[in-house]
Amino acid sequence: MIKVGIIGSTGYAGAELVRLLLGHKEAEIVWYGSRSYIDQQYASVYQNMFKLVDCTCKDDNMDALAKEADVIFTATPQGLCASLINEEILADTKIIDLSADFRLKDVSVYEEWYKIQHKAPQYIDEAVYGLCEINREDIKKARIVANPGCYTTCSILSFYPLVKEGLIDPNTIIVDAKSGTSGAGRGAKTDNLFCEVNENMKAYGVASHRHTPEIEEQLGYAAGAPVTINFTPHLVPMNRGILVTGYASLLKDVTWQDVRAVYEKYYGKEYFIRLLDEGLTAQTKWVEGSNFTDIGFKIDPRTKRIIVMGALDNLVKGAAGQAVQNMNLLFGLDEKEGLNLVPMFP
Amino acid sequence: MIKVGIIGSTGYAGAELVRLLLGHKEAEIVWYGSRSYIDQQYASVYQNMFKLVDCTCKDDNMDALAKEADVIFTATPQGLCASLINEEILADTKIIDLSADFRLKDVSVYEEWYKIQHKAPQYIDEAVYGLCEINREDIKKARIVANPGCYTTCSILSFYPLVKEGLIDPNTIIVDAKSGTSGAGRGAKTDNLFCEVNENMKAYGVASHRHTPEIEEQLGYAAGAPVTINFTPHLVPMNRGILVTGYASLLKDVTWQDVRAVYEKYYGKEYFIRLLDEGLTAQTKWVEGSNFTDIGFKIDPRTKRIIVMGALDNLVKGAAGQAVQNMNLLFGLDEKEGLNLVPMFP
Amino acid sequence: MIKVGIIGSTGYAGAELVRLLLGHKEAEIVWYGSRSYIDQQYASVYQNMFKLVDCTCKDDNMDALAKEADVIFTATPQGLCASLINEEILADTKIIDLSADFRLKDVSVYEEWYKIQHKAPQYIDEAVYGLCEINREDIKKARIVANPGCYTTCSILSFYPLVKEGLIDPNTIIVDAKSGTSGAGRGAKTDNLFCEVNENMKAYGVASHRHTPEIEEQLGYAAGAPVTINFTPHLVPMNRGILVTGYASLLKDVTWQDVRAVYEKYYGKEYFIRLLDEGLTAQTKWVEGSNFTDIGFKIDPRTKRIIVMGALDNLVKGAAGQAVQNMNLLFGLDEKEGLNLVPMFP
Amino acid sequence: MIKVGIIGSTGYAGAELVRLLLGHKEAEIVWYGSRSYIDQQYASVYQNMFKLVDCTCKDDNMDALAKEADVIFTATPQGLCASLINEEILADTKIIDLSADFRLKDVSVYEEWYKIQHKAPQYIDEAVYGLCEINREDIKKARIVANPGCYTTCSILSFYPLVKEGLIDPNTIIVDAKSGTSGAGRGAKTDNLFCEVNENMKAYGVASHRHTPEIEEQLGYAAGAPVTINFTPHLVPMNRGILVTGYASLLKDVTWQDVRAVYEKYYGKEYFIRLLDEGLTAQTKWVEGSNFTDIGFKIDPRTKRIIVMGALDNLVKGAAGQAVQNMNLLFGLDEKEGLNLVPMFP
Repeated sequence: MIKVGIIGSTGYAGAELVRLLLGHKEAEIVWYGSRSYIDQQYASVYQNMFKLVDCTCKDDNMDALAKEADVIFTATPQGLCASLINEEILADTKIIDLSADFRLKDVSVYEEWYKIQHKAPQYIDEAVYGLCEINREDIKKARIVANPGCYTTCSILSFYPLVKEGLIDPNTIIVDAKSGTSGAGRGAKTDNLFCEVNENMKAYGVASHRHTPEIEEQLGYAAGAPVTINFTPHLVPMNRGILVTGYASLLKDVTWQDVRAVYEKYYGKEYFIRLLDEGLTAQTKWVEGSNFTDIGFKIDPRTKRIIVMGALDNLVKGAAGQAVQNMNLLFGLDEKEGLNLVPMFP
Repeated sequence: MIKVGIIGSTGYAGAELVRLLLGHKEAEIVWYGSRSYIDQQYASVYQNMFKLVDCTCKDDNMDALAKEADVIFTATPQGLCASLINEEILADTKIIDLSADFRLKDVSVYEEWYKIQHKAPQYIDEAVYGLCEINREDIKKARIVANPGCYTTCSILSFYPLVKEGLIDPNTIIVDAKSGTSGAGRGAKTDNLFCEVNENMKAYGVASHRHTPEIEEQLGYAAGAPVTINFTPHLVPMNRGILVTGYASLLKDVTWQDVRAVYEKYYGKEYFIRLLDEGLTAQTKWVEGSNFTDIGFKIDPRTKRIIVMGALDNLVKGAAGQAVQNMNLLFGLDEKEGLNLVPMFP
Repeated sequence: MIKVGIIGSTGYAGAELVRLLLGHKEAEIVWYGSRSYIDQQYASVYQNMFKLVDCTCKDDNMDALAKEADVIFTATPQGLCASLINEEILADTKIIDLSADFRLKDVSVYEEWYKIQHKAPQYIDEAVYGLCEINREDIKKARIVANPGCYTTCSILSFYPLVKEGLIDPNTIIVDAKSGTSGAGRGAKTDNLFCEVNENMKAYGVASHRHTPEIEEQLGYAAGAPVTINFTPHLVPMNRGILVTGYASLLKDVTWQDVRAVYEKYYGKEYFIRLLDEGLTAQTKWVEGSNFTDIGFKIDPRTKRIIVMGALDNLVKGAAGQAVQNMNLLFGLDEKEGLNLVPMFP
Repeated sequence: MIKVGIIGSTGYAGAELVRLLLGHKEAEIVWYGSRSYIDQQYASVYQNMFKLVDCTCKDDNMDALAKEADVIFTATPQGLCASLINEEILADTKIIDLSADFRLKDVSVYEEWYKIQHKAPQYIDEAVYGLCEINREDIKKARIVANPGCYTTCSILSFYPLVKEGLIDPNTIIVDAKSGTSGAGRGAKTDNLFCEVNENMKAYGVASHRHTPEIEEQLGYAAGAPVTINFTPHLVPMNRGILVTGYASLLKDVTWQDVRAVYEKYYGKEYFIRLLDEGLTAQTKWVEGSNFTDIGFKIDPRTKRIIVMGALDNLVKGAAGQAVQNMNLLFGLDEKEGLNLVPMFP
């Protein structure tokens, strides 16, 4: 059994890790870290876990945890993982970081967008960007996996084959993304109160959201050149789900079947990516609770643009599910272990 | 492998059966019955099943199905199961009926509340009321299991120990129940449109809902005498979940611990019933997606009443989950097989 | 023009007062009190008021405000109004208190249920309980109006005629109430986050909610004797609306028409109370945004109980609307002024 | 008093016309047309109107209605208004058509996108496109007003000044729009059931939605040349509200203040358009229930694009409110009469 420690286990992503790992045959959680709820029963914080988890929360002593755990998930605010990591810890355990600390290769880009100093830049190079369908082989050998952001996973997976194959001009990409409110976390803020979110819709972080450089960097690798895009996230009155509606100008005169073939080339064998049939649109509800990303697209001959639509569950493929998928890769397990989740409808 | 047929597989309860059975190690679905979608791909009706179910829908030919299936789930409108069942079918297969056809032992009560003639009254006596925690041993030997209603399961489980032990006057029971909208089914009715349900709450079927006699009959067995109650269902703007808030006059001067001991006596070893600690209230979200029923209570010394609160997921323990639990009992499997579902939050 | 001051103008009830008073022909707001947002533009706190309100928030200096305002609304936490009120203020202005400070006549009951010491018990006697349809004439002469609570208004209006006319045993009353989340206020608490409330339903304050003694006191006046009831509030995933489902044992053998006649006797001429036709149920959506209370009922001959259903908008008739109605009474205006609000659907 | 007839009064847009006109001092409704509910009480179809409307529904006999009404609103499916209109009717009354029949000047474009034959092409030329802030003077003189679509109003108002002043390349416009579900109407369709819409988000009509040519035509007038855009509507789990997030490439090197000055030039005196301060984003909740359109924007120096955000209530400014505004213009009334609606929050 793989021994797992979670730092930040009482945030929404941390709680989703717990939900998924309870169903994982090869892993057991040995450390429920939560700075806010030290010594409290985990199930008193998440009553869904009543009778399922009988453990108290611990602090975020990563040194001690590293001795006990084969892998540590850090589902914590930006900066924490980088501030705690060191060589001794990495000698004992592997790290899957759900924060942004090791996602961007250029530390100055990190510091500019996140407005904090990076405390462990020496590990940036070796950290592997944990988008399993794209970096699978590198992940298997990693000590540090930088688990991608929720918006990012959906955006990159939606556009990657098009960019890689040169079907579109990557600098025309516009990603209009919509997210359920769990993406905003469990912090008690007025903006996230039920009455403020319900019956409402808004954009936020327009032209300034931190996932922008992450998308650009990864698509840049696919393009072989720097890419600059527009990314606009929106808050939607639902708990879970990310929907990406993306636009780009086609460079070639292609049919739906041509483009589909390109998607098949990259994702045809991927279990967690479902390429939708022609005429169908991705919907967040169809993937809720599962690790799937659904992708569909439409070509608009009038504007010579392609409209790509991707949907995933921000807490699963957008966070905890992908983190478990990364763990499975790290430890040579079946990549689907613990992730055979049938989407729940309604 | 148990071969399973589902008649009515494209209603919400039928679709939930599919979701659960896909994760069941000892069962496989051999027949997706749906009169409305004959010859259409199941996954075109429920796109969450894309890549997971590659079958087309069939009609509801129970005779043919009985030859192929070890067990048939009928998730159909009242009257259908009774109109199709016969001795030849029962010679070949077992029936778990999610409709009300075999729940009430008195056929005149059935015909009065449901306003239809019962087509197979000869099977009423042998059918076993499939409330697993109460009728477990009888279920194991049954040919026909009458799977309880969603409101009913929650109401009976909440009050059963109190009635059985004579702690309350059963004729003072008032059940004020609240249900998510999936309980209203997938039929295209104006009343169930998003804009009619959202931001709204209402009672319906006041003093006339069909689950009333079912609750009364079962609690009557516990009381050893006929019971008459008030039952008021409400429609709530959420997808899933039933919350029962029940009231009854205490017959004895008891403490919280006394009452808790009574609940422990009946449910202490039941995996799917979680007895909440003092001061906690049942919430539908804490059981969503799972087969759990959470039960808590409060004694009001001012009025000498007890307020009982029960919560379950109407599509799982209130329908498909309990049906699978019944199947497990029928076939001698681990009762939890396919039902190790961790509630999903948020 | 009546000059109005609002203390607590940035809570949800305060904001609703602003919405209503902007449409009131005889009133103008001269003071937007808000301890949390002093010197900030009101429209920066409630962006719906952009271009409609061009004022900054002020502190809660009631002495200064009393010099400027003909009437002060206190939409503040319990205890604040009682701590500020004095004879000088009352010499200058009238007070409509939306908190509970002057609702209960017995100060010991107040202190027991609210767990705070009452700072101005000398004003309790003269304060008039501002349930307009019942205490209209007394309100007209008051200096201090104790504006009723949201649950309370709906509960009392629903049961008042039945108790007053002796149709029911008041000690059998059970009020099962459901409220939209705006009733929980705008404070940033985890429990009120979108993801905690959405897709969830729960009871709270079971057998201990502070509105209980308020309902009991007022119904006690109608009964001519003390009344003890059960009152259970529930949180519903919607912004606005209170639905009361009430139960009581009938003392007489009455028809629907008999009971209707009793309601007509008390409410037949009341504009803001709509008595529903037989067979219809009260729904919160049908009164949203308006000052109406809709009331319907059903007699259950099986249990000899009556089930009463009342619905109102907790921020209008349950708070700000009734407060404006009280203001209209205090100043001899048309009681409907500013309250000609057509319910908004959907 | 202006006598008003409504054909299609029991759809959501028709019901909103009723809500608004009940508060209009110069208009009275003389005809509640509804083919589906002939001879039924209007308030039995919309119970919010109980005690407020005491009329029965009539059929859609426009000839008879024209004799009684000074103005007829047609809130009906495409094709109906065109099939009924004639010279005699226009001799008696004015028409404000909320359908698309007279919005597009090129009948072949209409027939291509709507897949129906136009029955009254002879009136297309004289019909005035009823976007009040842009065509005010023409509307005043019209016999037929083509009331704009909901998406269209929000899209055009958001981009009009930028196109008119040549700040952007109109052929780079991408409109990503999000709508509350009332925009889908009150028809009983599975896709619009609560459980299908709630907790879900999807695009629909991608690259093929009928509002596309309407936006293109109107922006083409502003540009002085044909314009081709991408328009993608999305369904959001909320009752009301449209949010447009629009993208376009800037042709000039401009500051936020420069662009703001352009918006001021066109909308500075418009009561119903609220230009948001820098840094604020449009949110649907801030305009709910009102006739306002809120518009904000952000310039992205990295991509040299402008992101424009507009929000309105699809049933008010997007349908009934704008129709009443047009009526006010037609009859020389204060443009705001009946439309002094303060947005309701929460």
